[in-house]
Amino acid sequence: MVLPPLPLPDLLLQLGAHQLEVAETLVWVGRLLVIVVAARLFAELLVRLQLPTILGELLAGVLLGLSGLHWIVPPDTQAQLSSGLLQLLGSLAHVPLPAVQEIYNDTFPSLQLVAGLGLYALLFLTGLESELDELVAVGGQAITVAVAGVLLPFALGTFGLMALFGVEPIPAIFAGASMTATSIGITASVFGELKMLRSREGQIVIGAAVLDDILGIVILAVVVSLSAGESLSAGPILRLVGAAVLFVVVAIGLSRTAAPAFDWLLDQLKAPGEVIVASFVVLSLCCFAATAIGLEAALGAFAGGLILSNSRHTKAIQEAVKPVVALFATIFFVLIGTGIDLSVLDPTDPANRYGLVVAVFLLLAAIAGKIASGWAFLSAQPTDRWLVGLGMVPRGEVGLIFLGLGTQAHLLSPSLEAAIVLMVIGTTFLAPVLLRLVLAGRGTLAEASS
Amino acid sequence: MVLPPLPLPDLLLQLGAHQLEVAETLVWVGRLLVIVVAARLFAELLVRLQLPTILGELLAGVLLGLSGLHWIVPPDTQAQLSSGLLQLLGSLAHVPLPAVQEIYNDTFPSLQLVAGLGLYALLFLTGLESELDELVAVGGQAITVAVAGVLLPFALGTFGLMALFGVEPIPAIFAGASMTATSIGITASVFGELKMLRSREGQIVIGAAVLDDILGIVILAVVVSLSAGESLSAGPILRLVGAAVLFVVVAIGLSRTAAPAFDWLLDQLKAPGEVIVASFVVLSLCCFAATAIGLEAALGAFAGGLILSNSRHTKAIQEAVKPVVALFATIFFVLIGTGIDLSVLDPTDPANRYGLVVAVFLLLAAIAGKIASGWAFLSAQPTDRWLVGLGMVPRGEVGLIFLGLGTQAHLLSPSLEAAIVLMVIGTTFLAPVLLRLVLAGRGTLAEASS
Repeated sequence: MVLPPLPLPDLLLQLGAHQLEVAETLVWVGRLLVIVVAARLFAELLVRLQLPTILGELLAGVLLGLSGLHWIVPPDTQAQLSSGLLQLLGSLAHVPLPAVQEIYNDTFPSLQLVAGLGLYALLFLTGLESELDELVAVGGQAITVAVAGVLLPFALGTFGLMALFGVEPIPAIFAGASMTATSIGITASVFGELKMLRSREGQIVIGAAVLDDILGIVILAVVVSLSAGESLSAGPILRLVGAAVLFVVVAIGLSRTAAPAFDWLLDQLKAPGEVIVASFVVLSLCCFAATAIGLEAALGAFAGGLILSNSRHTKAIQEAVKPVVALFATIFFVLIGTGIDLSVLDPTDPANRYGLVVAVFLLLAAIAGKIASGWAFLSAQPTDRWLVGLGMVPRGEVGLIFLGLGTQAHLLSPSLEAAIVLMVIGTTFLAPVLLRLVLAGRGTLAEASS
Repeated sequence: MVLPPLPLPDLLLQLGAHQLEVAETLVWVGRLLVIVVAARLFAELLVRLQLPTILGELLAGVLLGLSGLHWIVPPDTQAQLSSGLLQLLGSLAHVPLPAVQEIYNDTFPSLQLVAGLGLYALLFLTGLESELDELVAVGGQAITVAVAGVLLPFALGTFGLMALFGVEPIPAIFAGASMTATSIGITASVFGELKMLRSREGQIVIGAAVLDDILGIVILAVVVSLSAGESLSAGPILRLVGAAVLFVVVAIGLSRTAAPAFDWLLDQLKAPGEVIVASFVVLSLCCFAATAIGLEAALGAFAGGLILSNSRHTKAIQEAVKPVVALFATIFFVLIGTGIDLSVLDPTDPANRYGLVVAVFLLLAAIAGKIASGWAFLSAQPTDRWLVGLGMVPRGEVGLIFLGLGTQAHLLSPSLEAAIVLMVIGTTFLAPVLLRLVLAGRGTLAEASS
């Protein structure tokens, strides 16, 4: 929620108040329209290819941003806005082009703020949909898979980047952390589509993915908070890890004990809009508490969802939050895409070879680390360890959220940023394809044995 | 959507980036929490008193703002923030108090922007819920009642303020315009509660209220646009009235012809969140078009709702938009309340007598003008003209939206602003009470004659 105020340049002071307001409205509404329409077009395309829509939103951003049309350009990248767009807006608003550019840059922080609302709503929804009971049901096996699925990619990524490529510790840790999450949504939809969601493998993967989200967000909260201090001494690390773990443990505890109180309160409310308002209050309280004790607001948003995951009203809350997520989280994902400069990975430029190698390394480490976690449990019954491992591979929206937060905190170099994007895109594209191949090959076997 | 960027003071540059972000998050989240919780407490109280919740949100703002605790203080009022609140935030964020005040002021425009999103969503919803068919069904009688119910309060208010109190034309016209709307929601709920919604009187009032919203928003769009030019010559007025009327007529036409195309498009969309996204695109396109031809974005938002009011998916759109409205429009109404300085109406200060007389005049004119509209139709059957007139009295949320837009455009003096608030509160409180009294007295009569 960084909102750097900019000085009002003389240029804008020369405009009348009404003229300025008209130009601001046109820039605001026009920019939102372009973002939402482009995201929807790509999402519709990917849905028809049976691929995750989240990637469509990211690709829409890449097309609109630094690597494409230059229609949506974050001011801190210092890049030039498309001159065609400037001329169109300038002629509609009857305002000189440099003034349009100023208004564009001045209103960008508020766009990022709106995107932030979407991010927190999405994290809240992710927490809300965490089926802690599913995790408990599969128990030990899911827990060892989850822990291995966090530790292996994290260790491979972080130490690999530091040892092989000489990356600094903070960005290396951050890149490693961005490899820890597993996208429940994508895996669940592929398993569900092939009627394998209730299989042993499906249950283990879903349980482990729930836990991976929790572990990943704890690591993320610690890394982003650490990066502010710019030192890596044991004291602050232990304090932050302790605070983050405690925060999540308290949230899980509250999901058992406080949910009835929340339900009672919700039943007392009679004015309309009670579900979204009560959810918003829990979400905000958790963000406020997390920030006040030195953790990331993102962890608070997720914990708020965890607390309500056991409410009788979970369905109603989901219904109320989803429109907010559909609108605002889309903006968040598109904005991530706009800031990515894919030209740093252009293989025809020899200067980029190094960055490309890093990207390929991250992608391979991300896939190998998760697949290996499929062997990280004991089982008396025959279990397809390839299915479990592949099911853990897609990073999806959680990987992108991590990337977005890292970009906001200015932790990453452009080539590391692009490498993480490729890692997220690669795992998210490849996992459904590979899973379908493996599942289709063994589906008849599974049915015969059941 | 005014977003004046402010210079980043040296004070904030002395803070570390992380410290600044923590303080910003605490100010942001804390302020939103206070607004939403206070609004909810008052709304729950008023719902139990069978009074409109919208007044509760306004009262919450009055309590939190300039006239009360000074917790939520719009920076342009130059008022001092509560020192207790400053100290609390400063100690939580480990930031000196002047820096908290700076952050508070710098982030306020983004809060107003979020409130603006709520306003446009609410206007869209109002348009969406306009049952144009109901208007057509009651036909001529509703139309003459609506036109009289717009013209009488508008003329009484505007010319009364100019002739009796020497108010300048633009603020006088604006105050008159704020008296034109009728709140469908409040009237419909009282008529419904007493089972009179399907009576002749109920049908005429609901039909007329739909038309009043349309006429009121056209007048508002013209007045706000005019005020920018700060001159009142016939040419621009006619041009604006023509454009606004044309805009609404086209929207009504599109609601008949374009709704099937919209429904077809919506059926083609397969990625999740399609209803809110498609609605948002229509809303934004209409806002963009209205702004580009020199009208208010508010008119565009309302017209967007009108266009979709005939869609097969109206119910789904309402369900998707309502959470956004419940959260963000609440902020809009609370912010209106925070900016109201009720002390300008304190009767113990002789300097305020004049403002008080204006307020009482506006309230009486607002009530008398609408009650008189109950006689503005011919009817062969016996019709209770008092019921029709009283049903038109409550201004509710539409009156407040007008006030909010007038405040944003800096059109009104503090005493005129306070007078309009009293007019909106007075009509909205009194109408349900009077209607219940009259309906209860005549209910037995109506049943006996039917």
